[in-house]
Amino acid sequence: MTAPLAFEDFTPGQVFELGSYEVSREEIIEFASAFDPQPFHLDEEAGAASILGGLAASGWHTASITMRLLALGVLNRSTCQGSPGIEKLLWRKPVYAGDVLSARMEILAVRALRSKPGFGMITMRLETTNQTGASVMTYENPALFGMRSSNT
Amino acid sequence: MTAPLAFEDFTPGQVFELGSYEVSREEIIEFASAFDPQPFHLDEEAGAASILGGLAASGWHTASITMRLLALGVLNRSTCQGSPGIEKLLWRKPVYAGDVLSARMEILAVRALRSKPGFGMITMRLETTNQTGASVMTYENPALFGMRSSNT
Repeated sequence: MTAPLAFEDFTPGQVFELGSYEVSREEIIEFASAFDPQPFHLDEEAGAASILGGLAASGWHTASITMRLLALGVLNRSTCQGSPGIEKLLWRKPVYAGDVLSARMEILAVRALRSKPGFGMITMRLETTNQTGASVMTYENPALFGMRSSNT
Repeated sequence: MTAPLAFEDFTPGQVFELGSYEVSREEIIEFASAFDPQPFHLDEEAGAASILGGLAASGWHTASITMRLLALGVLNRSTCQGSPGIEKLLWRKPVYAGDVLSARMEILAVRALRSKPGFGMITMRLETTNQTGASVMTYENPALFGMRSSNT
């Protein structure tokens, strides 16, 4: 079994392509019904009448899809222990039914934690694009990773 | 029919209590399976072995539940047109199966938009607490609201 990616394996500037995900109309409505029941996320006509210009996914849905791609693409083969939060999240363009989203992660910074020996904080920048290459969401995400040296 | 809450109805310092939501074990696992399949969000033992200390909800799940409470509590009876993003999101404590989350929104700032006559940006601060009163998540959220004067 390959050793998981640990704190020491990440360096600023590294880029990980995280794969893609098609967003169906049914899933947009299902997510919005559960978690973001605003009319423009539930109904084609209400979406078209809004500044979104059509039935558009909840921004939290786009963020959740990006989390899935990040978990399956990198975190689930790493020593990641979770994240304290999110900074500078921007929903840059609407996500419409049938859009195919791709995500990309870049390492911004790495910092060993004196307060928590054997662990370090890695700040990632996520960018999600649609099938035209347009950026639909970006955010910065610090996350805690175990050090390889602490696993020996 | 009551007129929807418009830009002019919000002032800094106003607080809205948004109600509560019980998070079941089944829903934690269902959300994580779809959107955040990290072991500590899927499995009791993996959660207990992690720094989260037990099976814990994805942070994006907590954010999505809070969005539901915000939509049903305020936005769906307002002129809200959506949000450009999120700032300073902090996941302060784990959310465990059976937790009952409550959300609260405070108006931080209001700003009419010269670039978009008839609309203004309202910055909200959201705080989500658990049944012990402990804060589990906070974030700041600017959102676009129509002015009442533009609806006449």
